[in-house]
Amino acid sequence: MGFWKTWFSSSESVATNKTTAFEDHTRGDKGNSNAVSDSIVFSTERDIDLYELEELCDAVGWSRRPLRKVKKAIEHSFLVASMWQVRGNKRRLIGFARATSDHAFNATIWDVVVHPDFQSQGLGKALMKYVLKKLRSEEISNVTLFADPHVVDFYRTMGFIPDPEGIKGMFWYPQ
Amino acid sequence: MGFWKTWFSSSESVATNKTTAFEDHTRGDKGNSNAVSDSIVFSTERDIDLYELEELCDAVGWSRRPLRKVKKAIEHSFLVASMWQVRGNKRRLIGFARATSDHAFNATIWDVVVHPDFQSQGLGKALMKYVLKKLRSEEISNVTLFADPHVVDFYRTMGFIPDPEGIKGMFWYPQ
Ligand SMILES: CC(C)(COP(=O)(O)OP(=O)(O)OC[C@H]1O[C@@H](n2cnc3c(N)ncnc32)[C@H](O)[C@@H]1OP(=O)(O)O)[C@@H](O)C(=O)NCCC(=O)NCCS
Ligand SMILES: CC(C)(COP(=O)(O)OP(=O)(O)OC[C@H]1O[C@@H](n2cnc3c(N)ncnc32)[C@H](O)[C@@H]1OP(=O)(O)O)[C@@H](O)C(=O)NCCC(=O)NCCS
Repeated sequence: MGFWKTWFSSSESVATNKTTAFEDHTRGDKGNSNAVSDSIVFSTERDIDLYELEELCDAVGWSRRPLRKVKKAIEHSFLVASMWQVRGNKRRLIGFARATSDHAFNATIWDVVVHPDFQSQGLGKALMKYVLKKLRSEEISNVTLFADPHVVDFYRTMGFIPDPEGIKGMFWYPQ
Repeated sequence: MGFWKTWFSSSESVATNKTTAFEDHTRGDKGNSNAVSDSIVFSTERDIDLYELEELCDAVGWSRRPLRKVKKAIEHSFLVASMWQVRGNKRRLIGFARATSDHAFNATIWDVVVHPDFQSQGLGKALMKYVLKKLRSEEISNVTLFADPHVVDFYRTMGFIPDPEGIKGMFWYPQ
């Protein structure tokens, strides 16, 4: 009960008119529809079950990371955004993203993921819009990320530009 | 006095045998040598005079930023590294870099700068080595940055790779 209270106080059901996915309130998972209405809810609450998050990352094939470090990373991220399917009094974690930041000029978005059951319905875009809205509301002007080759076009649809003015993303490897 | 005490407690004169620049203890600025010995000192102390930092950024032609935001950014950076020329009891800020991080997996380095009077002597490399050493000591494995085109090769000499495995640095601009 306490969880739901704090959870909803920092969450929003923002997306209802943004993509078609949210308008179907009788949509069941994988076509197994029933009469319980469900909605998609976004939250910046950090109190995320690490095992549920691990399951989500497993589902897209990401390699496992020590939960101790995931916990620390969540604590020290500037923004933690999660996306939930809510049905009656049940909720399921279906999307996640986080950002590091200096709280002033720049933010860098990491770990963007949507559960395969919910991909290609506009939810990844809705999650990113939610993240960008939150970052803008904090007056962060320089929003960056590092995109795997297969998702460069996904981010491009949202206004992200690769290598603007020749600026190169670089990764350090010990020589 | 208090400043110097706390400052030196978190600072290191690490670079003496790393580049030729530090070995010449009688080197004067701009060839105007004198007998006072000077050394280059690195620090992670955050208590940096914002006007002195602004002067350093002015010297390389960076556009001015509100000091209130610079202060906030320094407070919320994971690592703030500064490089000082120390002569007797005088010190001058000659280099700066900072990094944002989730304190667990990744760090992103921003605002790397060496004063023009001190460039091309290996000091930028020494400053970056200091930053990388600090990040590694915190078990950060993924060190990233966004390099302007003219400094891609500078970072390359230190082991940074542009677009590894096709990963693209991307910047968001409102559509
Ligand atoms: C990338 C990901 C978050 C996208 O989420 P999604 O919910 O499937 O994306 P959406 O349905 O909101 O798609 C939004 C737009 O991007 C496009 N798009 C989606 N995935 C794409 C992809 N992999 N490549 C190119 N375009 C893509 C869609 O066609 C859509 O375009 P439109 O608005 O013009 O119709 C999701 O596929 C995912 O979690 N993938 C695995 C994890 C991953 O690779 N994360 C990125 C790490 S850098
Ligand atoms: C970029 C900068 C920090 C380099 O500092 P520096 O003290 O001049 O660099 P160093 O003397 O340590 O040079 C280290 C190596 O990089 C090379 N290098 C230095 N500047 C370079 C440049 N602009 N382009 C390509 N290579 C460069 C040097 O030749 C040297 O190579 P070597 O080790 O093989 O001899 C400094 O020039 C600077 O502050 N520039 C203005 C601010 C800026 O552009 N910052 C980067 C923002 S992304």
